[in-house]
Amino acid sequence: MIRRDSRLPNNLIQNVKRIPNAVREIVPWRIAPVYLGGFIAVPAFLLGEPSVDFAEGISESEFVFNSFSFLIWGVLVMWMCAGFTMLESGSVRTKNASMICMKNIGLYSIAGLAFFFVGYNLMYVDVGDFIGSLRFMYTSSAPEVALLEGDADALPAVLEQDYSTMSDWFFQMVFVATTASIVSGALAERVRMWSFFLFTLVLTAVIYPVVGAWTWGGGWLAQMGFQDFAGSTIVHSTGGWAALAGVMIAGARLGKFRRNGEARPTPPSNVLIVTLGIFILWFGWFGFNGGSQLKLGTASDVIAMSNVLVNTNLAAAAGIVVSLAFSRFILGRMDLVVGLNGAIAGLVAITAGPTMTDHYWAVIIGAIGGILCTAGTKLLEKLKIDDVVGAIPAHLVAGIWGTIAVCIAAGGDIVTQLVGVLAVGAFVFPVSWLLWKALALSPLGIRVERDVEELGQDAGELGIEAYPEFVLMPENYDD
Amino acid sequence: MIRRDSRLPNNLIQNVKRIPNAVREIVPWRIAPVYLGGFIAVPAFLLGEPSVDFAEGISESEFVFNSFSFLIWGVLVMWMCAGFTMLESGSVRTKNASMICMKNIGLYSIAGLAFFFVGYNLMYVDVGDFIGSLRFMYTSSAPEVALLEGDADALPAVLEQDYSTMSDWFFQMVFVATTASIVSGALAERVRMWSFFLFTLVLTAVIYPVVGAWTWGGGWLAQMGFQDFAGSTIVHSTGGWAALAGVMIAGARLGKFRRNGEARPTPPSNVLIVTLGIFILWFGWFGFNGGSQLKLGTASDVIAMSNVLVNTNLAAAAGIVVSLAFSRFILGRMDLVVGLNGAIAGLVAITAGPTMTDHYWAVIIGAIGGILCTAGTKLLEKLKIDDVVGAIPAHLVAGIWGTIAVCIAAGGDIVTQLVGVLAVGAFVFPVSWLLWKALALSPLGIRVERDVEELGQDAGELGIEAYPEFVLMPENYDD
Amino acid sequence: MIRRDSRLPNNLIQNVKRIPNAVREIVPWRIAPVYLGGFIAVPAFLLGEPSVDFAEGISESEFVFNSFSFLIWGVLVMWMCAGFTMLESGSVRTKNASMICMKNIGLYSIAGLAFFFVGYNLMYVDVGDFIGSLRFMYTSSAPEVALLEGDADALPAVLEQDYSTMSDWFFQMVFVATTASIVSGALAERVRMWSFFLFTLVLTAVIYPVVGAWTWGGGWLAQMGFQDFAGSTIVHSTGGWAALAGVMIAGARLGKFRRNGEARPTPPSNVLIVTLGIFILWFGWFGFNGGSQLKLGTASDVIAMSNVLVNTNLAAAAGIVVSLAFSRFILGRMDLVVGLNGAIAGLVAITAGPTMTDHYWAVIIGAIGGILCTAGTKLLEKLKIDDVVGAIPAHLVAGIWGTIAVCIAAGGDIVTQLVGVLAVGAFVFPVSWLLWKALALSPLGIRVERDVEELGQDAGELGIEAYPEFVLMPENYDD
Repeated sequence: MIRRDSRLPNNLIQNVKRIPNAVREIVPWRIAPVYLGGFIAVPAFLLGEPSVDFAEGISESEFVFNSFSFLIWGVLVMWMCAGFTMLESGSVRTKNASMICMKNIGLYSIAGLAFFFVGYNLMYVDVGDFIGSLRFMYTSSAPEVALLEGDADALPAVLEQDYSTMSDWFFQMVFVATTASIVSGALAERVRMWSFFLFTLVLTAVIYPVVGAWTWGGGWLAQMGFQDFAGSTIVHSTGGWAALAGVMIAGARLGKFRRNGEARPTPPSNVLIVTLGIFILWFGWFGFNGGSQLKLGTASDVIAMSNVLVNTNLAAAAGIVVSLAFSRFILGRMDLVVGLNGAIAGLVAITAGPTMTDHYWAVIIGAIGGILCTAGTKLLEKLKIDDVVGAIPAHLVAGIWGTIAVCIAAGGDIVTQLVGVLAVGAFVFPVSWLLWKALALSPLGIRVERDVEELGQDAGELGIEAYPEFVLMPENYDD
Repeated sequence: MIRRDSRLPNNLIQNVKRIPNAVREIVPWRIAPVYLGGFIAVPAFLLGEPSVDFAEGISESEFVFNSFSFLIWGVLVMWMCAGFTMLESGSVRTKNASMICMKNIGLYSIAGLAFFFVGYNLMYVDVGDFIGSLRFMYTSSAPEVALLEGDADALPAVLEQDYSTMSDWFFQMVFVATTASIVSGALAERVRMWSFFLFTLVLTAVIYPVVGAWTWGGGWLAQMGFQDFAGSTIVHSTGGWAALAGVMIAGARLGKFRRNGEARPTPPSNVLIVTLGIFILWFGWFGFNGGSQLKLGTASDVIAMSNVLVNTNLAAAAGIVVSLAFSRFILGRMDLVVGLNGAIAGLVAITAGPTMTDHYWAVIIGAIGGILCTAGTKLLEKLKIDDVVGAIPAHLVAGIWGTIAVCIAAGGDIVTQLVGVLAVGAFVFPVSWLLWKALALSPLGIRVERDVEELGQDAGELGIEAYPEFVLMPENYDD
Repeated sequence: MIRRDSRLPNNLIQNVKRIPNAVREIVPWRIAPVYLGGFIAVPAFLLGEPSVDFAEGISESEFVFNSFSFLIWGVLVMWMCAGFTMLESGSVRTKNASMICMKNIGLYSIAGLAFFFVGYNLMYVDVGDFIGSLRFMYTSSAPEVALLEGDADALPAVLEQDYSTMSDWFFQMVFVATTASIVSGALAERVRMWSFFLFTLVLTAVIYPVVGAWTWGGGWLAQMGFQDFAGSTIVHSTGGWAALAGVMIAGARLGKFRRNGEARPTPPSNVLIVTLGIFILWFGWFGFNGGSQLKLGTASDVIAMSNVLVNTNLAAAAGIVVSLAFSRFILGRMDLVVGLNGAIAGLVAITAGPTMTDHYWAVIIGAIGGILCTAGTKLLEKLKIDDVVGAIPAHLVAGIWGTIAVCIAAGGDIVTQLVGVLAVGAFVFPVSWLLWKALALSPLGIRVERDVEELGQDAGELGIEAYPEFVLMPENYDD
């Protein structure tokens, strides 16, 4: 198996957990036939592989388990997009709820197409230290195509891949969509649809894939030993940094801060839908973290996956309980919205290292995630940064915490983890800032006109109200 | 394995992908013991099967994979009923939303019972050219019962089935429910509950099973080589034809068309719920198409299934993006509702042939599906056909397109595909038309009284309002 | 395999289906090394196991199947919490809907933590006749930890477990959360949040685990031969008894019963959300019952699981159809709410014995469940017991029926089944009653003040309204 090839540095083997078949091109004399992209279908074992190597290969049933794990867990991660949509569209005022639906269904589509045409190759194919290939589109490997066409001799080369090429693509694709979802919520209620979609396109075609290439793709951070099991930094902080840059340039919503500087409460317009969104996210997160085990075919894999699910659940539960308790301390009452966001923070915090067998660590990590998220929400308000759904504290702050927490419970190196956290921030934040700035200065603009914002994006920009038959309260910004 | 039996014509082997154990009765001297329905449990291998035949049998782990694939993907397809319910109940005016809930939970129940008692046997058991058996109920095979009772000798006969009998039944059952769901949306807001349920009963007990017998059951269309992987025609067009007949007989809703003939916009009353419905359908469609690979036990199967999921997602994404762009062209603005229906159209279009390894074809097929659906929606309005949720363009128009598109990307024969499309239409549309007509002329009637329609079916027919505590806008039909 | 160990009485082998590794301590000389909790990792096979015993062990792929079955079905059961939340928050009046969200997200968190720290050990570890161990926390077995750390020699001992320790824990944990969810709905709209959470803590840490220890844990009821496949009694009746005690002590909601004693209708405030909740529950129930097969690794297991899913679906469908018809009989119209609760009743009724191969029994059992639930709802109203969502008829009444119905279709012994039903009631009801009473008498109290109840718990206790922007109807209690 290539992952145990002595050519690969040891830390690469441990940390580049998502490294797909593509990385095999690092050892070109061996893997080339697998990667000639459909042109030559010579099975690798015909090229003088020592037979002992084949003996190392996995069984067909392991191959099925590994691939199916990507598919079924990936489907659950796709479902998280519905969760973000519900969370966000229930959190905004009714006058902007349809626009949230539009942005989210749009971003999932854009992310899927961009990652297919460009993103995946940048992230995983021929990755050197910093970036992968500029190839266009991605497809099944040559042995897979041969096998599908009935060439049973292609089977050994297929099994060497460990899982089907496109099952891995599918699982990776739903992750990039998650990253884009994070941005949508923070920027709700004032950012123009077209600019948001353009930003999403660049984020999912380039920015996220570059971060991914450094890490899961086998680039310089992976080679340093940076650990991020399912993406506290790679997915959640990336989304959080992009969102932070956006909200800083777009500015706060009209009336979010009173003349005296206090934040005006903007409670969710539909608490049931917000709660549904949280449950969807929690449900989908089992796929997000569980599937990131990347393999299911052996007892060891399924034991690890079991621990991952247990820790994921414990961290979320602790995130809720502790942030509720903490809200009582700082707000004087148990605040449901704080509690719900605490669940997300707990989930984000455990995502970087959910494999520990001492499960109480998951409770502690999730609990601290919940506290940091709640405190971060307060801090952003003080700084007059208007993040509509608390995406930045939940995904960026808890994501940083989770990445560092790997050192406590999963044996990460603190310096390496900090380098990873800072490097991703130092790349994503300024690039996003420049992109949002360029959009703001372009004819498009990033902020809707004042009258559209007052009227709501649904009626003013989209032309479809979320609840057209319901009588709603008038708003008042006069204080 | 029966599917490679030389008695079966070659095209049957390729196209009758859903053919269950039942078809084995075609070779009665061999399969009879499996199919004597619980009366005789003599394992097949005792009847002089050549031992080489057993060597062809699948392993127990393949059997588990195949059966489990039906179960887990089938559960996702069941969930699509929730998606249709949300899509439809959010799309109608608030005064008819409870009735949609009633019709959908009712149709899923009726479909499940009708398919158990009658439908499955008509579709799959002893299918000749046109129809299966009139037997009552369906159950585990005799070797399965023997195995469950502890007779380990029954295992080889069980493994010959490739998957457990009832896992296949379960997967087929959720498909018939999908067909019925399509009808519900088009006919919303004016069709009487009892007539709808009676129509559903006939559709799921007879009409759909007959179409299914011709195709997946191994009948004349399958023998011609008609290809429809997961049912663009068999499920979606069937539902679409049945809906079209219904809306033509029921007529448009009061006030849908203005005195000057223009269509009055009837925007969704709850956009969040509609969007949730679309996400549920997209999520469930991975089961719909993925499970239709019918097997998971080999590397080849899971590779194909991976391609199916990837193509399904790409087609839906393309359907959204292109129909949004197209809506800007023909409506002057990006229309969320058009975009959401474009996702469905993309999904329906790829359903007939989602296995291609050149994935850009999925993008193209989904995109064209989205355009055709949007154009079809406009066309229906011109024809004054009132399809409340756009079910006919999304399921019938895109379904026809998808069935033809198989020729482009998956090697179908254009004549055969057209024969299939036309034959299904020539059967389902007139039979449905006659049935709706008979119901309309019966004492039941199919259309609610004018005052019930004005008041809404919720208050007028069902007695349960969807949102009883909310203050709603009065409606006005005066222009 | 320990389950076939002659040391275990025969009925234990048949009935203690959930018995985890823990029970192996009953044969301490053999299993001890597995259970020394991380201190000694000597694989069992080094301790003089006869080699033939290892030959009995399952294959690695069976181990993966069994464990993965717990994980994926467990995730679906977790999703049922979202179903309960939607069902309940859509059923209550808008003024109490946020509180339902709070209670449900809170109870799921509390249940998960309580079962981790205390509950699981009480239920499954070192169970004698009545109760398990008071140990704190639960974790992977020693051989699992060894295997994860790279000791391949630990594999045989791992495979002896049949499935990964924490996959079982995860599956059991989501069941305890279901039990707690049942209580929430019945007590809605008047019970104080803090008291509810305290009750939940005791229910999930102690009460449910004790019932579980008697049965799935291998205690006295299991030894008698009590059969309850997935928990009609153990989960649903337990929740129902706890709810009944609570509503009796808390009393009816203000205005629920008119001065003349008639029950005032309190229709759901959001029928779409209620219907969504039912679909979620139905969807999740496939995991609840399907996963309770406990194994997936053999043809026999997956055949049984297929039958379980089919029967589950048929019972729910029959529950709906029959309770709708019955509602027409006793209410004069098809009542959607009755129908929806009939689905739950059908599901609960089939839960105790869903494995029969004569599937029409599932139709009958579900249908009777629906009738009993509808009748039970009427009866509770006569008794002036105010169960907001009909949880007691659906979970307790149908749960008792389902437990008895095992005798009809799955070979249970009627006396044993009745003893189980009565014993659980005789334990859960009085203990819950005492606990609710103690809470009522404590400074906390269990009932909100009259003005809070009139205003609604959302504004009065939680401080977050469910739909703050929507104009709502005023209520009127004057008659």
